[in-house]
Amino acid sequence: MAGYGWISFTTDYGTFDGFVAACHGSIARVAPDIKVIDVTHHVPPADVARGAAVLAQTAPHLPASVHLAVVDPGVGTARRGIVLTTPNGLLVGPDNGLLIWAAEALGGITAAHELDNKDWTFGDVSRTFHGRDLFAPAAAHLAAGAAPEQAGPAIDPASLTRLPDPHVTIGDGWIEAEVLTVDRFGNVQLAADGSALSGLGSELLVNGGVRARRGTTFADVNVGELLVFADSADRVAIAVNNGRAVVLLSVVPGDTVRITAR
Amino acid sequence: MAGYGWISFTTDYGTFDGFVAACHGSIARVAPDIKVIDVTHHVPPADVARGAAVLAQTAPHLPASVHLAVVDPGVGTARRGIVLTTPNGLLVGPDNGLLIWAAEALGGITAAHELDNKDWTFGDVSRTFHGRDLFAPAAAHLAAGAAPEQAGPAIDPASLTRLPDPHVTIGDGWIEAEVLTVDRFGNVQLAADGSALSGLGSELLVNGGVRARRGTTFADVNVGELLVFADSADRVAIAVNNGRAVVLLSVVPGDTVRITAR
Amino acid sequence: MAGYGWISFTTDYGTFDGFVAACHGSIARVAPDIKVIDVTHHVPPADVARGAAVLAQTAPHLPASVHLAVVDPGVGTARRGIVLTTPNGLLVGPDNGLLIWAAEALGGITAAHELDNKDWTFGDVSRTFHGRDLFAPAAAHLAAGAAPEQAGPAIDPASLTRLPDPHVTIGDGWIEAEVLTVDRFGNVQLAADGSALSGLGSELLVNGGVRARRGTTFADVNVGELLVFADSADRVAIAVNNGRAVVLLSVVPGDTVRITAR
Repeated sequence: MAGYGWISFTTDYGTFDGFVAACHGSIARVAPDIKVIDVTHHVPPADVARGAAVLAQTAPHLPASVHLAVVDPGVGTARRGIVLTTPNGLLVGPDNGLLIWAAEALGGITAAHELDNKDWTFGDVSRTFHGRDLFAPAAAHLAAGAAPEQAGPAIDPASLTRLPDPHVTIGDGWIEAEVLTVDRFGNVQLAADGSALSGLGSELLVNGGVRARRGTTFADVNVGELLVFADSADRVAIAVNNGRAVVLLSVVPGDTVRITAR
Repeated sequence: MAGYGWISFTTDYGTFDGFVAACHGSIARVAPDIKVIDVTHHVPPADVARGAAVLAQTAPHLPASVHLAVVDPGVGTARRGIVLTTPNGLLVGPDNGLLIWAAEALGGITAAHELDNKDWTFGDVSRTFHGRDLFAPAAAHLAAGAAPEQAGPAIDPASLTRLPDPHVTIGDGWIEAEVLTVDRFGNVQLAADGSALSGLGSELLVNGGVRARRGTTFADVNVGELLVFADSADRVAIAVNNGRAVVLLSVVPGDTVRITAR
Repeated sequence: MAGYGWISFTTDYGTFDGFVAACHGSIARVAPDIKVIDVTHHVPPADVARGAAVLAQTAPHLPASVHLAVVDPGVGTARRGIVLTTPNGLLVGPDNGLLIWAAEALGGITAAHELDNKDWTFGDVSRTFHGRDLFAPAAAHLAAGAAPEQAGPAIDPASLTRLPDPHVTIGDGWIEAEVLTVDRFGNVQLAADGSALSGLGSELLVNGGVRARRGTTFADVNVGELLVFADSADRVAIAVNNGRAVVLLSVVPGDTVRITAR
C-alpha cells in the first residue's frame, strides 16, 4: 500500500512541555520520511469538542494525511483507541468523539478499527501518555503504508462514541445556533452552516439587541460595527471590523446566539 | 527556473486555531517538497508594523526563500496581493507595508508584481482567509520555480503601500528613537541602527533619569543595571542584566526613548 | 562519518520573536537536509534547570539526534560552549548545566569538547545571540557528519558546570522530593524516580494533610481526588483526576513535597 506522506497532529498538550516533541520522536523513529503538520497543540486541556471542531475545519485543507489527534481525558481507562478510514485520509486517536466530525468533513467513515497492535508500540506503554507510546507510532505505521486492518479488529462505526451535535435551529428569517469556537481575532463562529444565511436579510440583530449587517468580509461594515458572514470554514460567524466580536457579545463556546431581522 | 527550497511564514494567526496548519496544507498540496520555516505566528492581531519588523530582522538569516507573510486587516478589500523580488529571495503577501522592510533587508526591491493568477488558487477564494486560499498557494508555486511574472502584472515599486518610517534622530552625543520591539526577555529594541552608538560615551542616561552603560553583552553591567548595546539585529537596544528593561523603562512599541550622556 | 538525521531544539526564546526561526535558518544554511524537532521554546527565560529537565525527559524518545539547547543567561561571557558525546546522540549548548541531565538520560557522557571552531560560525558572532551564530551552526555541522573533535579541544567532563541535584529523600514509607516541573495539565512532577513508589502503601497523605491514593492512571481515583503515580518520564507525580493538582497543592518548581502513609 502506498501510505501517506503526511501526518497532521492535534492535541491539548501545549508547547511548554516536551510532550509534542516526544510524539514527533515516536513518528520519526517509525517513519523517518513522513512529514508532520501540527494543527494545534493548544486545545484547552481535555476539551474534546474544541479539538474536534478545529480538526474538522482544518483537515480538508491538508494533503491526504493520517490525522493524529489526542485530547484524551480517559487515557489509561477502557476507552478504545481507534483508526477511522475515510475517502480522503485516515484518523487515529481515542474513541471519545474527537475524530468523528473530521471524518465526516473528509467524506465520512468507510471503516473503523480498534487500535490493538502490540507490535506497533515501544516497550512498555505508559498508562498516562498514549500519544507518545501508542497513537503516534500507529499513525506512523499507517502513514508508512500499513493497512488499517493491521491496527486491530474491525468495529461497527455505530458503536463509536459521538459528541452531542451542537444546537442549531434555522427559522423563517432567524438563526439560533451554538457558539462553536472563538478565534484569535475575537470572531465568533456558530455551528450553523453558511447556507443558513440565505434566509436572512441584510439588516440584523444579534441576541435581540446588537445591530449587525450581512456581508462577506470585515470591511463590508464600518469600523466597530458587527458583521454576520460565512467564514472560511463555511460557518455562520460574527465579527467586528477592526474589533473583537467576542467582547461585544460576551459569549463563550457553548452559548447560544440568536440572529434575527431588524 | 530553479525555485527555492524554503518558504518562511509569518502571520498574526496565532497557534490556537487551525489557520496556520491550513496554510501549511495549501503549501504542501502545491509543492510537497518545499520546507517551511515558521518565523512567528504571534504577531499581535493586525499589527502590520510588528510583523514587518520581525520579518525584516529574521529573513536575512534564513536560506534563500520565498517569504510568505500575512498580517492583513484589509483582507477581502481592494488592497492588492503582491510579490516582491529581491536579490536574496521573494516576498509574498498583502500590499500594506508588511513586506517592504524585509525586502530592503534582503537587498532592495528589484521588481514588484500584483498577485492575480487565478490558476494558483484553490476553488473559491474565501473573502476572509487569503492566507490559505491565495497567498500560501502563490508562495508554493513561486518556491517550486514559477517566475514572479506568472503571478500577475508588473507594478511600479513606487506605488507600493509603505509604513511610516519609525522616528529616529541622532544628535551630538544623544539618540532619540522609537521603540521598535520588546522581546521575550524584556529587552527594548530601538529603531536606530547600531552604528548610532558610536557617537555616545560609555556612561549614559535613558529618558533623562535612568542610569545606563554602554557595552556589548548583558554581563558587561552588574546584575540589575541597564545596558545600552547593539543587538543581534544591529539595532540600538536596552537591556537589564538578569532583569527586564521593559519594566524598568515602562515603554511600549511606538514610544520614543532618548539616550544621552551623563 | 554518518552524522545524524535530526536536530532537537530547546530554548527559552519564546515564539513571539524571530529568534527560533533565525536558528532554524542557520541550521538550514549549513545542513539543508537535516530535520529539526522543536522540543520547546517556552522554557521560562534563563531557567536553566527547567530547560535541563524538559530536555532530559524528551531526548530519550527522539531518534538519535544532535540535541541543541540554549538557555543561556551568561551569553557573551567567558562561559564555554560545549559538545557532549553520549552513546545515543550529541548535545550542543552552553556549559551551564543545561545539557548534563539529558546526557545522563542518553547513557552518560563519553567525551566532552569545547566549541571553538571559528570556521563553523557565520561572519561576526553577535555577543548576545550565540544560538543563531554559534550553537545552531555547530549542531548542523555535527548532524551533517563532522566529528566532535572538530568542534574544539577535548575537555575533562569533571570540569563541566553542573546544576545542583534536586532534593530527594526516600524514607521508610515516605518520600520527600523537590517539585521538578508542573505540566500543562497541572500535574506536579517530583524529582524522585518512579521506583521510589514501591515503598509506599496505597493510602497516602501529601504534605501532611491532603489525602491521595496510589494508582497508575488518572481514572484510578474519583474525579477531584488526588493520585500519586509514576508518570510517563518515570518520575513520581501527583495529579487530580479531571482537575489540577498544582492548584490543590499550591506548589511551584523547587518546593519540597512530602508523601507519607495515612
